[in-house]
Amino acid sequence: MNLPASPSADTPLSYRAAGVDYELIDPLKVAAQRAAAATATQLQAHGFREVGESRGESAYVVDVGPFYLASIVECLGSKALVADEMARLTGRSWYDAIAQDTIAMAINDLITVGATPLVVQAYWAAGGSDWFGDATRAQALVAGWKQACERCQVAWGGGETPALAGIVEAGRIDLAASCTGLVNPKERLTLGDKLGPGDAIVLLASSGIHANGLSLARKLVERLPRGYLTPVQAGLGYGEALLAPTLLYAPVTEALHRAGITPHYASNITGHGWRKLLRHPKPLRYRVHTLPEVPPVLRFIQQQAQMDDHEAYGTLNMGAGFALFVPAAQAQRTVEVAAAQGVAATWAGNVEAGDKELLIEPLGLRFAADELQLR
Amino acid sequence: MNLPASPSADTPLSYRAAGVDYELIDPLKVAAQRAAAATATQLQAHGFREVGESRGESAYVVDVGPFYLASIVECLGSKALVADEMARLTGRSWYDAIAQDTIAMAINDLITVGATPLVVQAYWAAGGSDWFGDATRAQALVAGWKQACERCQVAWGGGETPALAGIVEAGRIDLAASCTGLVNPKERLTLGDKLGPGDAIVLLASSGIHANGLSLARKLVERLPRGYLTPVQAGLGYGEALLAPTLLYAPVTEALHRAGITPHYASNITGHGWRKLLRHPKPLRYRVHTLPEVPPVLRFIQQQAQMDDHEAYGTLNMGAGFALFVPAAQAQRTVEVAAAQGVAATWAGNVEAGDKELLIEPLGLRFAADELQLR
Repeated sequence: MNLPASPSADTPLSYRAAGVDYELIDPLKVAAQRAAAATATQLQAHGFREVGESRGESAYVVDVGPFYLASIVECLGSKALVADEMARLTGRSWYDAIAQDTIAMAINDLITVGATPLVVQAYWAAGGSDWFGDATRAQALVAGWKQACERCQVAWGGGETPALAGIVEAGRIDLAASCTGLVNPKERLTLGDKLGPGDAIVLLASSGIHANGLSLARKLVERLPRGYLTPVQAGLGYGEALLAPTLLYAPVTEALHRAGITPHYASNITGHGWRKLLRHPKPLRYRVHTLPEVPPVLRFIQQQAQMDDHEAYGTLNMGAGFALFVPAAQAQRTVEVAAAQGVAATWAGNVEAGDKELLIEPLGLRFAADELQLR
Repeated sequence: MNLPASPSADTPLSYRAAGVDYELIDPLKVAAQRAAAATATQLQAHGFREVGESRGESAYVVDVGPFYLASIVECLGSKALVADEMARLTGRSWYDAIAQDTIAMAINDLITVGATPLVVQAYWAAGGSDWFGDATRAQALVAGWKQACERCQVAWGGGETPALAGIVEAGRIDLAASCTGLVNPKERLTLGDKLGPGDAIVLLASSGIHANGLSLARKLVERLPRGYLTPVQAGLGYGEALLAPTLLYAPVTEALHRAGITPHYASNITGHGWRKLLRHPKPLRYRVHTLPEVPPVLRFIQQQAQMDDHEAYGTLNMGAGFALFVPAAQAQRTVEVAAAQGVAATWAGNVEAGDKELLIEPLGLRFAADELQLR
């Protein structure tokens, strides 16, 4: 008999083994991207035009005259499954944190282009009407959503709360957020045209796994002696550590604007981990000399999944939730402005002329340009 | 033994029996609406303000100075399940139509406030990577999405294509769209402040069930001798008729603007059927004297589900996909402008001073104000 290999603590755990097969998704993505790009001309009928450089970036930007309009829709992913399991184990709801995660997925992408987020819409698709009948959980979701909006100074415009039995699994919820904002004044547009040698790389701290890498993290649970209750450090269980909500970086980017600092580029570090530092198409070398602290839960995942540093930094955020590329003369001030907003920041390295690559010197790692394919 | 009653052709079929329980969803909705409304003050930090009258309307509106910004996220609902079953029965993909349905859900709501839709974002959350591996289906979805964007002259900005195993059911997809637009010039804002006695009710034709009432329509299949292949008229099967894509009304509202007609109010007729004519909070009587043609599939559903006219018109669109309230002097011209865009329209009735109610005179029906609770 051929049985499927079951995961064991002896073998490394890869992202693919955790069930995400990008090779099946990618042809559709490419076709969709091509079709989407072809619709840009439609804006001419309204006297507007797309900012073509925003295609392939984290938010889509349209020039509407007095300012740029930026918009996005983003999915939470599978983190809600961890919340569900932790609710079963602990008897409390974690959906206040999950709400913040969902909003962070949208807002942290939107701000990369220099936009001020203004309106968030909620997309809460449950597996049945009964999901909403758990008042404690529902109120936690509402309260967390409101709080995250207030932290980012956005208006919660409304949204959808469909019951989708037969599409969403019973007892589950598919969470997403759309966000609309303005780049105002237009000089705040951050699409990397000024990115170049001499820029500093400032990394904003993450709170943990954020909302990327959860497929891997959930797969790992099967190997842990006490599952989600396995301690990652004294007093902190794996599940609880995973559920630390994604940090919201809009307060930092808005504070930078008030401080007169306009980043040359910004990258939200989500899927693909630190490879996202290579996001911009320009041929530039990114040399990292100083590492931010690694949250215990990420160090724990790396160890338990037997990932080497190259795989860990190429998959997880490893303590860096967001990257700002600013003129070196403004790097120290950028760190201070972030700290004043309660977000630890590290002047981690610099941008140089050279082949497109990322060098993480303290670990002796190199990521080549072809290790990130986003476009 | 107590067995649950199975549906039979002898008993009427209600919406609740089809599995949607609004009483479980509504407390959450109310809590969310309250929390959302409280976030409006956040816009002050950016020098903007919400248009408070848009709360409770179909799209959220913010005053950003030179124009109003409108945004929305909308879900397709369960229509994709019909497409899946029809693909199994017929061997072809119906996702080109489903794509249009999804976009229509967002765009037809956005335009009610007078906005020109500019950008659509795609939210395609599949039950696993393998959903995207069916190239025919995936290409149909992409092609239909692009075509609907072009028909509405919007740019397809991008979107999300997550694989959500464990949240979305295997083999299924959760489809939604967000849309952002501008009310420009600001005089196009349509929130009903001018709605009043003397206005005409112009109804734009629907193509069938659109994307509302599908829970009921799917439940009904269990009663039909040949299921989705049961003819609703010669040469047209039930499943195929259900999958006629939702009409896109943005070309009509844009053409009306070019013709110098600014509706006093607009209502997208989705869930709650014709009760949506009572949407605006003003105390006004809506008297309908002329009915649009009822699409065969809706007449068929009414008959098979043994719905009386009151239930049918209070649940389904019954041939009216969108309602425009215009000055009576512009009613005939409105009908002509819609027709020039390929959308049949009917001057169906008038708005009067009086108690808030909807009178459908040709059928002797009355809907009182308390039969629609949206706010």
